[in-house]
Amino acid sequence: MYTLYYSPGTASMAVHLALLEIGAPYGLELVDFDRRAQHSKEYLRINPQGKVPTLLIDGQPYGEVAALLMMLADRHPEARLAPPIGTARRNEWYQWLAYLAFALGATYRNWFYPPDLGFAEHPPELRAALRARIEASWDRVDAHLRAAGPYLLGADMSAPDLQLLMYMRWSRNMPRPALGWPALAQFAAHMRARTSWQRLCELEGLTEWRS
Amino acid sequence: MYTLYYSPGTASMAVHLALLEIGAPYGLELVDFDRRAQHSKEYLRINPQGKVPTLLIDGQPYGEVAALLMMLADRHPEARLAPPIGTARRNEWYQWLAYLAFALGATYRNWFYPPDLGFAEHPPELRAALRARIEASWDRVDAHLRAAGPYLLGADMSAPDLQLLMYMRWSRNMPRPALGWPALAQFAAHMRARTSWQRLCELEGLTEWRS
Repeated sequence: MYTLYYSPGTASMAVHLALLEIGAPYGLELVDFDRRAQHSKEYLRINPQGKVPTLLIDGQPYGEVAALLMMLADRHPEARLAPPIGTARRNEWYQWLAYLAFALGATYRNWFYPPDLGFAEHPPELRAALRARIEASWDRVDAHLRAAGPYLLGADMSAPDLQLLMYMRWSRNMPRPALGWPALAQFAAHMRARTSWQRLCELEGLTEWRS
Repeated sequence: MYTLYYSPGTASMAVHLALLEIGAPYGLELVDFDRRAQHSKEYLRINPQGKVPTLLIDGQPYGEVAALLMMLADRHPEARLAPPIGTARRNEWYQWLAYLAFALGATYRNWFYPPDLGFAEHPPELRAALRARIEASWDRVDAHLRAAGPYLLGADMSAPDLQLLMYMRWSRNMPRPALGWPALAQFAAHMRARTSWQRLCELEGLTEWRS
């Protein structure tokens, strides 16, 4: 049994999607950002950084999107979210999970939270630099999917695809949304046709970028 | 057989340390930053971001520090750099690898590469914010080691400890170096007493922060 502490459309989305792909029973706990519940004493006890997601596994709290995807993939091999240990595919899997967390996850954090960088609002050169880094990731991932897709590891969907879909959605109000890259757009079409995505949108009340 | 593309004292260090801990044969290829070799056509072919490290495994190039540590740990279970799959310790292991890459790895990248954020030099408020984030990580990790150390997973050294030691070394010229935190200082003393660290310093020609 799992409990996911989430906020709609945020970084918890990739983990929520993994739970739906797996089909394991789980409970949902809303962390109400409007009430700044992510900074409440109770929440900081299970997530010292005051971020979502937190996933309770056997009563123990864990954080970090890429880490949670790896934990869930290992615990549910039948869901095939990870290739077997010791294979070249598993190496690629680790690499994409780490790359996406670093190149997109950390850069988006800077994009969406100017105070993390000491500003109330980003100076224009900073905004441009962050935007360029995010777009450089779309270039790289799009080229990879074109050469070796339709999913990050080729023919089969796996955990980093869930991460990628989430980061793509976050670009929807940016100057160049990720759907402008053809192989990424095709990837999103596959992913958004899945039952897990439709169910996620219903459960989290997401209307934008649903399909 | 492995080949590590490295530059002394940079992000390749944690992976180099893992290879030494494992004791597997490997070759070293210097990527000469003074000649900007990380941006050469040849290097970009194996590492499209122009970063170190790159590790060739069975002739295939892979990047991303945390990912490489996971690949090596899986391939050499006898080195005990990872707890068994499906255990609570393995969950913690994933979490620390992801946390350190995100909270320290990505923040250091911003600290050391102002052009990544659009500046030739950081404006003071940005510099202060990045410094505060790095120090907040020392607070968190120090508290954790005090409560549950001496290593990140408790009694036994594992892959994220190699990552942590590297990030600690990078703080040596910052206003508050990580050695100022008592449990981190004790951790570094354990780690720097290991043969792997002494050998790493010799091989990479590192003299500062050696012991």
